[in-house]
Amino acid sequence: MKHKLEVCLSPALLHLYDTTDCNVVIIDIFRATSTITTALHNGAACVIPVASVEECIAIGNQTPNSITAGERDGKVAPGLSYGNSPFEYPADFIQGKTLVLTTTNGTKLLHMVKGAANIIIGSFLNLDAIVDFLKNDDKPVVLGCAAWKDRFNLEDTLFAGAVASALQQDFAINCDSARAAIHLHDASNGAYLSFLKNSSHYNRLSGYGLIKDLEYCTSKNLHPIVPILRGNQLVGL
Amino acid sequence: MKHKLEVCLSPALLHLYDTTDCNVVIIDIFRATSTITTALHNGAACVIPVASVEECIAIGNQTPNSITAGERDGKVAPGLSYGNSPFEYPADFIQGKTLVLTTTNGTKLLHMVKGAANIIIGSFLNLDAIVDFLKNDDKPVVLGCAAWKDRFNLEDTLFAGAVASALQQDFAINCDSARAAIHLHDASNGAYLSFLKNSSHYNRLSGYGLIKDLEYCTSKNLHPIVPILRGNQLVGL
Repeated sequence: MKHKLEVCLSPALLHLYDTTDCNVVIIDIFRATSTITTALHNGAACVIPVASVEECIAIGNQTPNSITAGERDGKVAPGLSYGNSPFEYPADFIQGKTLVLTTTNGTKLLHMVKGAANIIIGSFLNLDAIVDFLKNDDKPVVLGCAAWKDRFNLEDTLFAGAVASALQQDFAINCDSARAAIHLHDASNGAYLSFLKNSSHYNRLSGYGLIKDLEYCTSKNLHPIVPILRGNQLVGL
Repeated sequence: MKHKLEVCLSPALLHLYDTTDCNVVIIDIFRATSTITTALHNGAACVIPVASVEECIAIGNQTPNSITAGERDGKVAPGLSYGNSPFEYPADFIQGKTLVLTTTNGTKLLHMVKGAANIIIGSFLNLDAIVDFLKNDDKPVVLGCAAWKDRFNLEDTLFAGAVASALQQDFAINCDSARAAIHLHDASNGAYLSFLKNSSHYNRLSGYGLIKDLEYCTSKNLHPIVPILRGNQLVGL
């Protein structure tokens, strides 16, 4: 019998899903999970996701060769050193370092998941690697959209649709959220950035002058790696 | 300036929306809001939506010329007289009567809404009447999907998309849920029932042998009436 695949559209709906022994994919396309994928593929030793700026500073202080990163309202948060753009983490900078990262939505969702077999990090940058991992590992799947302060967003759901669409022959899909995500992905025709134009995060981030980030975070398979949570660290598989 | 129009995909997300002085549309396509619309258009004096079977019986006992209705697991709930199918309420039966109705999802959402200017009841059966009401009444709009035990469903979101699509020139839409609903509605090409095939409620209700109900509840504009909450009663405008 096929395992089921479900999509959770917001952290505020996560309690409706039983994530025990599931593979859970955390999705925060703009930009946490794209940045984590980039940093690990570019050679970061690990990424430590944390909930608050204070925790970020504390863990940064006690971790050798680490850097602290996080934004609030589109700017590097006071007390931290770097932001939440994938462009800040090229190989010649991040190689061998520990990235301690705080974000508004993705980090929160990651810490809410209970009892999962694996928690992995998904983005368009590692889409096929995520699909292959889920296909090869014999477990039920929950695709968790980080959303924006619990509000549904289009880009995380679009990515969930890309994964669900690629896996619909391999899993049982009896979840209207997954069906809707697949419809949205079909409607995009693979032109992700133009599909997302005028969406709420597109408007917010382009207002900060971050069009290049939006283009990058909607590019497929630049970084074929699976970030996976081990203890409190995300490492690359 | 245009008023905003937002879509709330589940009662579990309603706290993210400020419904004060808004027109709020309650949407529970399969089948509460379709049945309410049918009963009122067919001449029911009013519909009293209640949360529990016990309350339904109590209010039924104290209301002259009333009938009690509600289902649990697809059958008339013990202690009540009728079910939740629009076919149970033709004009020659329901005319002049008070329908005391308990449902799992629509009723719950209706009672959660706070401070709204108006709470009205939407279904495909009164789609254009709802659109006209919202267009003519100068207030922000929240389209509230009743969902299924807080889980997103496709048919309520499809209806929200039909309304949002018809109103997108008249309202400001800065809400990804509304954008997604419009995409889903576009994807349906107006063939609602076939679009909903294999959705979770389609499967559940067709499993009870209720295909005719599904067909009826996805028919447009059979009952051009706007059910609106006055005190604890829904009456037809």
